[in-house]
Amino acid sequence: MRFNQWLENIAVYEAGKPIEEVVRKFGIKEEDIIKLASNENPYGSSPKVIESIKQNSTKASVYPDDSMLDLKNALATKMNISVENLIIGAGSDQIIEFCLAAKINPQSKILIARTTFAMYEIYAKHFGTEVIKTPSHQHNLQEFLQYYHQYKPDVIFLCAPNNPIGECLDSADIVDFIAQINNDTLVVIDGAYQEFAAHKDVKKKIEPNTLIQSFSNVLYLGTFSKAYGLGGMRVGYGISSQEIIQALYKVRPPFNITTLSLVAAIAALQDHAFALQGIENNFKQMRHYEEFAQEMDIEFIPSYTNFITFVLKEPHDSTLICEYLLQKGVIIRNLKSYGMNAVRITIGTQEQNLKVLRLLRDIFEARG
Amino acid sequence: MRFNQWLENIAVYEAGKPIEEVVRKFGIKEEDIIKLASNENPYGSSPKVIESIKQNSTKASVYPDDSMLDLKNALATKMNISVENLIIGAGSDQIIEFCLAAKINPQSKILIARTTFAMYEIYAKHFGTEVIKTPSHQHNLQEFLQYYHQYKPDVIFLCAPNNPIGECLDSADIVDFIAQINNDTLVVIDGAYQEFAAHKDVKKKIEPNTLIQSFSNVLYLGTFSKAYGLGGMRVGYGISSQEIIQALYKVRPPFNITTLSLVAAIAALQDHAFALQGIENNFKQMRHYEEFAQEMDIEFIPSYTNFITFVLKEPHDSTLICEYLLQKGVIIRNLKSYGMNAVRITIGTQEQNLKVLRLLRDIFEARG
Repeated sequence: MRFNQWLENIAVYEAGKPIEEVVRKFGIKEEDIIKLASNENPYGSSPKVIESIKQNSTKASVYPDDSMLDLKNALATKMNISVENLIIGAGSDQIIEFCLAAKINPQSKILIARTTFAMYEIYAKHFGTEVIKTPSHQHNLQEFLQYYHQYKPDVIFLCAPNNPIGECLDSADIVDFIAQINNDTLVVIDGAYQEFAAHKDVKKKIEPNTLIQSFSNVLYLGTFSKAYGLGGMRVGYGISSQEIIQALYKVRPPFNITTLSLVAAIAALQDHAFALQGIENNFKQMRHYEEFAQEMDIEFIPSYTNFITFVLKEPHDSTLICEYLLQKGVIIRNLKSYGMNAVRITIGTQEQNLKVLRLLRDIFEARG
Repeated sequence: MRFNQWLENIAVYEAGKPIEEVVRKFGIKEEDIIKLASNENPYGSSPKVIESIKQNSTKASVYPDDSMLDLKNALATKMNISVENLIIGAGSDQIIEFCLAAKINPQSKILIARTTFAMYEIYAKHFGTEVIKTPSHQHNLQEFLQYYHQYKPDVIFLCAPNNPIGECLDSADIVDFIAQINNDTLVVIDGAYQEFAAHKDVKKKIEPNTLIQSFSNVLYLGTFSKAYGLGGMRVGYGISSQEIIQALYKVRPPFNITTLSLVAAIAALQDHAFALQGIENNFKQMRHYEEFAQEMDIEFIPSYTNFITFVLKEPHDSTLICEYLLQKGVIIRNLKSYGMNAVRITIGTQEQNLKVLRLLRDIFEARG
C-alpha cells in the first residue's frame, strides 16, 4: 500500500528497555531494578494524587469532562493567566504535535538545537517537514538567530532547560531572542523542567504570563510528568495567545486525557509541598554525582533539571557503560544516538544514587 | 499568525454538556443526573478493573511500558492474531488519526456514510482532506461502491454497527464489498460496538483475523470504551496487515496510553463475564425502548449497539425534547447537527431507563 511519501524517512520508534526485559534477560528481580533513564519522579506521586486516583477509580467507565474546566481553572490560577490562554495535552508532547499540525506541512522548516528533546524532530517528520539544527549541542542563541535568518523556519523550539543535556538559557536572553523574531514564526519554549531550573537559579525562571503578554507568537509548554510526578498519567499543557490556543484546539482530539489523569493533575497541583520537597532533594542528591564527576575527572554539564549528563572521554564508552549497568539492574540513558559519547542519569533517591555511584566507581577506578 | 490553510474550515470542537453544567444551570444534584449521551457502559467497569487501578495507583509517576506487550499478548490471544498485526491507541479514535496521518493529505479524499461517527470527518479536516458522503443516512454498500468508482477515495470508513444510528451491515456483505476495492485503498472497519452486534446476530459478527488474512488493505478498529466499560481510560486498538501496522507505528507518539489504562485494559479482558452480562442486560433493557416506540408510533432504527435512535415526526422536535429532558436532569444526544430530527439514547440501567421512558411518555402522551 502507498502511504504519504514522507513516511519513508521515518524509522519505527523502538520502545526503551522496559523493566520486564531486564528481568527476563538478566534474571534480576523486578524490585531490585533501578530505572534512572526516563527522568521520572523518584519519589513517585503525591499521596494526595494516589488517594484521588483510588477514590475516582469507579469513574474509569466515564469519559472525561472534555471542557477540563476544573483543571484549567486550577492551572490558570497558579500560572496567573486566563483559561482562554490554556490547552491541556496528553503530556506536553501532544501540544508539540498540535502546534506542528496547525502550523507546518511538507514545505515547512523547523529549527532546533543539535541535541535536544527528540520529539520535536520525530513529530516534524510525521508531517514531512525539514528539521534544521544549530551546530552546537547546547542552545546557542547566536546560532539560532543566524539560522533563523538563513533558513526562515516556521517554528523554533527552545528547550529551557534542555533535555537530554541539562543546560538552561537565561530567561532574559530568551526574551531578547524572541523580540528579534518575526511574529509569524512560532517560538515554542519547552519548560518541562522549569520547576527545577527556576528553583536553582531565578535567572532561569520563565514567566509564561508576561511572555504571552509581550509576544503573540510564543507557546509555552509545561508538564505534570516531572516535578509533579505524573509521568504515567500523560498530562501536559500549553500557554499562549488566544489566537494560537484556538488553532491548537482545532487539531485537538476530544477526550485527549483520561478521566483519572484529570483528577490526578488537580490533586498534584494541590500538593505543591510534595513537588517542592522533591525538587530540593533532587539538587541535594545531584551534588553526589557532581562530586563524583569532579573526583573522577568526568566532564559534566551543570544541570538545571532532574538528571545529569556525563560527557565521557576515551577509553570510556557510553554504550559499554550502559550495558554494564544494565547487567547490574540499573537502567540509564545512552546518548550515543545523539552523536555524543555521554550518558544521562536521572537523579534518583539517595539509595538508588548510592548504588549507581558505587557501580560507576568500579568502572572509573578500574580504568583510572 | 498564519496556520495551515485548511484550519480555516475547522470549527473549534465544543465539548458536550458536562454533568457539572447541568448541576449549575438547573440546580439538580449530581447524583440525580442521568447521562445517556455518550454510550458509556451503564454498569461501570468490572470490579477487577477497579481493583487493578487501585493496586497500581502508585505507578502514576512511571511512564507506561511503551512496548505494551502484556496487553498486546492478551488481545492477540483473544482475537487469534499475531502481536505484529496489532497497535494500541488512546481510544480507537487515535487509530483513526494514525491511519489518516499515514495515508492522506490535502489532495486526498475519504468516503463515509452520510450519518456516521463524527470523528472520521473531524480528523480528515485536520489533514485538509475532502470528505465524500454517500446520500443515505444509513450504510448502503451500493452507494459506497458507486462513489468509490466515481471519487476514487484513499480511505473508506464502514462503521459496523453504525454510531449514531445503530444499524449494522452483514459481515458477508462487507467482505463482498472489500473484494471489489483496489488494494491501495484503505478500508477501515470500525467495530467499536461489534461485541453488541455479534451477540445479537451472528450474521453481523466480523472476524478480524480472517479479514486481514484475506485482504491486505483492511484495518479493523476495536475499543475498550463500550462493552468493556473503560470509556474514561482511552484504550482502543487496530488490527491489520503488518505493513499497515508498521506505517501506523511510524506516526504513533510514544507513551500514547497511560500506565493505568494499560493495567485496566488487561484486567478488563480477564473479566469477559462482566462484559457479557452488560451486553445481555443491554438488549433486555432495549426492549423497553422498542416497546415504547411502537406504542407511541415513534420510528426507531433496529439497533445492534448499546443505544437506540428515535427518528421523530413533526410536531416533535429533537432539540425541544433534549432541552426538556435536560431540565429534568437527563442528558441524551440530539442528532439535529447530523441533519436528522432524531435523538440517540444510550441504553442505561433499568432504573435510568424507567425514568427516561416516564419523561418521554409525558411528552408523547401530551402531544398525542
